[in-house]
Amino acid sequence: MRGHHFVGFAALVGIVSMVGFGCENKHLAKQNEAATSGALGASASITELMKARNLTEADVEAALKTYVPTGKKDEYYIFASGGQSGNVNVIGVPSMRMLKVIGVFTPESWQGWGFGGEGDKVLDQGNQGNHKIRWADMHHPNLSETKGDYDGEFLFVNDKANARVAVIDLKDFVTKQIVPNPLAASDHGGAFVTPNTEYVIETSQYPAPLGREYAPLSEYKEKYRGVAVFWKFDRAKGRIDPATSWAMELPPYTQDLADAGKLDSDGWAYINSFNTEMAVGGTLEGKPSVESGASQNDMDYLHVINWKKAEELVNAGKATTIAGMRVLPIDVTAAEGVLTLVGEPKSPHGCDVTPDGKGVVVGGKLDTHATIYDVAKMKTLIETKKFEGKDAFGIPIMAFKDAIQGQVEIGLGPLHTVFDDKGNAYTSVFIESVVAKWSWKNFQQPVEKLSVHYNIGHILSAEGDTVSPDGKYLVAMNKMSMDRFLPVGPLYPQNFQLVDLTGEKMRMLIDMPMPNAEPHYSQMIKADKIKPITAYKPGTNPITGEVDPSRVVGGKEAIKREGNKVDVYMSAIRSHFTPDQIEVEEGDDVTIHLTSLETADDQTHGFTIDMYNVNVSLEPGKHENITFKADMPGTFPMYCTEFCSALHLEMMGYFLVKPKAK
Amino acid sequence: MRGHHFVGFAALVGIVSMVGFGCENKHLAKQNEAATSGALGASASITELMKARNLTEADVEAALKTYVPTGKKDEYYIFASGGQSGNVNVIGVPSMRMLKVIGVFTPESWQGWGFGGEGDKVLDQGNQGNHKIRWADMHHPNLSETKGDYDGEFLFVNDKANARVAVIDLKDFVTKQIVPNPLAASDHGGAFVTPNTEYVIETSQYPAPLGREYAPLSEYKEKYRGVAVFWKFDRAKGRIDPATSWAMELPPYTQDLADAGKLDSDGWAYINSFNTEMAVGGTLEGKPSVESGASQNDMDYLHVINWKKAEELVNAGKATTIAGMRVLPIDVTAAEGVLTLVGEPKSPHGCDVTPDGKGVVVGGKLDTHATIYDVAKMKTLIETKKFEGKDAFGIPIMAFKDAIQGQVEIGLGPLHTVFDDKGNAYTSVFIESVVAKWSWKNFQQPVEKLSVHYNIGHILSAEGDTVSPDGKYLVAMNKMSMDRFLPVGPLYPQNFQLVDLTGEKMRMLIDMPMPNAEPHYSQMIKADKIKPITAYKPGTNPITGEVDPSRVVGGKEAIKREGNKVDVYMSAIRSHFTPDQIEVEEGDDVTIHLTSLETADDQTHGFTIDMYNVNVSLEPGKHENITFKADMPGTFPMYCTEFCSALHLEMMGYFLVKPKAK
Repeated sequence: MRGHHFVGFAALVGIVSMVGFGCENKHLAKQNEAATSGALGASASITELMKARNLTEADVEAALKTYVPTGKKDEYYIFASGGQSGNVNVIGVPSMRMLKVIGVFTPESWQGWGFGGEGDKVLDQGNQGNHKIRWADMHHPNLSETKGDYDGEFLFVNDKANARVAVIDLKDFVTKQIVPNPLAASDHGGAFVTPNTEYVIETSQYPAPLGREYAPLSEYKEKYRGVAVFWKFDRAKGRIDPATSWAMELPPYTQDLADAGKLDSDGWAYINSFNTEMAVGGTLEGKPSVESGASQNDMDYLHVINWKKAEELVNAGKATTIAGMRVLPIDVTAAEGVLTLVGEPKSPHGCDVTPDGKGVVVGGKLDTHATIYDVAKMKTLIETKKFEGKDAFGIPIMAFKDAIQGQVEIGLGPLHTVFDDKGNAYTSVFIESVVAKWSWKNFQQPVEKLSVHYNIGHILSAEGDTVSPDGKYLVAMNKMSMDRFLPVGPLYPQNFQLVDLTGEKMRMLIDMPMPNAEPHYSQMIKADKIKPITAYKPGTNPITGEVDPSRVVGGKEAIKREGNKVDVYMSAIRSHFTPDQIEVEEGDDVTIHLTSLETADDQTHGFTIDMYNVNVSLEPGKHENITFKADMPGTFPMYCTEFCSALHLEMMGYFLVKPKAK
Repeated sequence: MRGHHFVGFAALVGIVSMVGFGCENKHLAKQNEAATSGALGASASITELMKARNLTEADVEAALKTYVPTGKKDEYYIFASGGQSGNVNVIGVPSMRMLKVIGVFTPESWQGWGFGGEGDKVLDQGNQGNHKIRWADMHHPNLSETKGDYDGEFLFVNDKANARVAVIDLKDFVTKQIVPNPLAASDHGGAFVTPNTEYVIETSQYPAPLGREYAPLSEYKEKYRGVAVFWKFDRAKGRIDPATSWAMELPPYTQDLADAGKLDSDGWAYINSFNTEMAVGGTLEGKPSVESGASQNDMDYLHVINWKKAEELVNAGKATTIAGMRVLPIDVTAAEGVLTLVGEPKSPHGCDVTPDGKGVVVGGKLDTHATIYDVAKMKTLIETKKFEGKDAFGIPIMAFKDAIQGQVEIGLGPLHTVFDDKGNAYTSVFIESVVAKWSWKNFQQPVEKLSVHYNIGHILSAEGDTVSPDGKYLVAMNKMSMDRFLPVGPLYPQNFQLVDLTGEKMRMLIDMPMPNAEPHYSQMIKADKIKPITAYKPGTNPITGEVDPSRVVGGKEAIKREGNKVDVYMSAIRSHFTPDQIEVEEGDDVTIHLTSLETADDQTHGFTIDMYNVNVSLEPGKHENITFKADMPGTFPMYCTEFCSALHLEMMGYFLVKPKAK
């Protein structure tokens, strides 16, 4: 039936192609006229192409819905956590082309991020204890919001492995700040922001003594704790202010994912958790692993937090200081109705507030349901102190049945949920490898499912975390890709699958291999909300955002020596450096103050000194300060590392280090 | 005219679409039947889609020629130098999707490359002098060859900034070896291989004293030199053997790009050069920069090298040893006809041997021609010692007019040339921003040009460097992208443009933003030539390729202490580690021997210890040894960093460091 229908289709398009696509001569003629203007018309018919490349009708539709012609632009940006790469991947939708990798927690040498320039200072902000940390397990990117909508100004990301948060300015796509969490040993919930980005919230994953000091596992219940840090964001400065930030002590359950309330739930935050059993493993001694120990209880706990009230308590001096940070103890928050618990079925995962702010959706890794908690009901239960009991740490517990709107049968292992503009929710279902579509306004409606490839973890939709999701596109972030792409050895790429939400049913559009990481969460924002600069004001330090005090102006270049300290004031412009000869003595402390005198867009230079592990990127107007010890004598070329002109290879000089007299 | 024609076309397809694409109900019905099988037929007509997305007929053709449906595979791999990223980008053709980033010279934390595991040993091989070097300016990837054709076994890459070569095994896409060049201060020509990969050739860029010791620029002519290193490759071991490798001293010109002969020119190598003026700049003192000083001569020199004869001279003991490497001095090679020069017009660039091995094509950055040198004529001139003179270093010079097949008028600033299967050459023209197509068999034919966006540097074609190029696809590697993509701040992506070579004329197919680097050269190989493994033999050390002596077998896990040395024998399997509790004393030297017990494809785990800057990737069967000092006391979670199962988050444990008694 379908076969026959297909033939009919093919034959007809065949005819069309003679008329519409087929007239090669006309087009070739046009090309000849148009000299170097490139391909104009088509040279093959649709049927020829479908046959040659074995494309179905659905493939043709998907191709035409995702192809972005040369010179045209994508509709949306995706900001994807770079997972274990520690950096952010920026992707265009619908083409699913990677537009940029932003250096954040991990050195990135193209951008000169971590190779002798100003970026090193940001990376060093992120050191923990006496350790220089140069990677991250990035989990959750979160765009800054105004009134619960993405405003396109800033991006916040967290590092699960080393409990840190970074601030990226979307004016120049540069990481401006890394804030190490002094209390937590790891994080997972967040970075997520409150509706006007008053706070960037970071909640812990695996419990440890606050401040991470040593305590044996035998003292787990007494000394190990979770924590939620409320980082105060100063939008004018574009930086987090640790001094005015504060935290809340949490019980030693494994706090997991989290979300901030909005609209009706503004002022509240929600964190799911697992391992309320407080299992710690012991596999070498034959004790049960955490995976089985943590899966005993039928219910774990959703943490319900009144952060506006918590803020009042902090300002009222109810906090105690740990590792330099103000922390509200559990006894205070539990007594004041600031921290309340409610049951969550079977190894919960995901925690997503509905666009109207009236519900909180939580999945269950070993459950088949999505549970929708009722914000209004929970507020009333807390106000009227209607609890069914307290946990081992004295935190009041609401009755599950009193706190929920309802549950929806989803499938095996529902994880995360995002939303569209039509009242639909889309939940990732890991074990079943599907996206499940259901209505969060009327959760009786039967679920529609779309197969994804394979084992979906996170999921995202266009502006899906805001008070006004766009619908249109959804991306399934699949953890496994087995047979989807050309083989690249034992380490497989992840698979992002773009799904079309414009039709009555979900439709698969295109697969994108993720080549450099396992992204966790991502967000998708309308392209016109991002308005980056294309060049820096002359002499701008990319980290401070100000004109650098040692900015170099053309004609004022110099080499100045004071004792064994050498300051080089250098400029770069097509296609030479001034100075292009630097001679120092072995052991000198050298600082090169380097300004690009370029002003034209995309006129980037780079600068390296061979064998000195130094490389910076010099976008137009940018200033870098490069400091190092000349501890290796010899003759070292220095050159422009970015192809800048026809005579780019000639943009070079020599760095000479004269050996100490023996 | 075209508009009218287009309407006619649209109307017709409109009708088709009613018949062919339009029957949504039928398709939706199918979807309902097919439950979770995903989208089947199309739901919109071609004309609707073209209108909605403003696509031309040429766009439709390009879309259908580049779209790879979900689950289908690409036809070719591109191995692209990662430029200043120091790593290799692997891309699928025709989709132009990035499939993998291979960690090579720069730490890559997803792969655990440089974060405590076995990869650190490879990175440390690449240190130069007393400097730990952790980035590279990668220029030229070269696939291993058998009889002048890519064999898909190995990839070699160079580092211009730090004069190094790396060997990547395409069985697992892992870097196995980094070889630092002990003589050169930077390189550019190469890595390129001889027709049976007997040698991986690396030639210097900016001259310096061999061994890089200090010499003032006043002694440039006397003490600065170029060098060509012939790294002997042991295919059975899959490693370069430095002991049997050797080098040739070259004059202090700036040797640039290079290529090995093949077929008629097998046994020969060619290197272009610039700055035969030996300009060294001095911009701070108002002297001319290198860019102007190096552009004075009308002719620079192509270096013509008889490497088979050079090998004989080395074996005959004619080499002197510098920095531990055997080096043939100029006086020997000049006298023996092993090193000969011939003029090259105006700032030459590019050096590409024709598929038949009879010609060498060189461009000129300030010239408008491609010059084709005649291999046979040059052999005769050298055999008969017919020279027009000698350079300042006593190297014989052949007369330009006697050495060439001819020249072709190309355009402003021809750089690199690649080839197809029909006798055509394609030259990148930087200043003009075009690809110029011409016949290398009959170079009188008028040139066809295709505009590219913008400022093309390198260029590649399918199997374009072999004795049998495929034609079909070409990629313009453009250095600038100005208005091509959504803005991402002052640092723009590069732009790879895929061009269709199957028609009478070149046709632009699709733009690919390069998000993480400025690639230089790349190579494209037929997909079926690459046959990677999908899992490791149990307990395999990824660097040695052998089963690791300390490989861990299930049930044999242990923690062993000897004085302050602690050896942990750990296994990983869904979804727990054994042991999952490790307690050591502050200051202990810890080695974790960690084996994945998984065997299924794509069943990868990761392992990190929070705050210890440790992360490794554990593909099925892989073994890693992680060594560090427990120098920070405290409580640190350790966990699986790769989403491995529904209970992945529970795959964790604790690393406890007990503080020294104060």
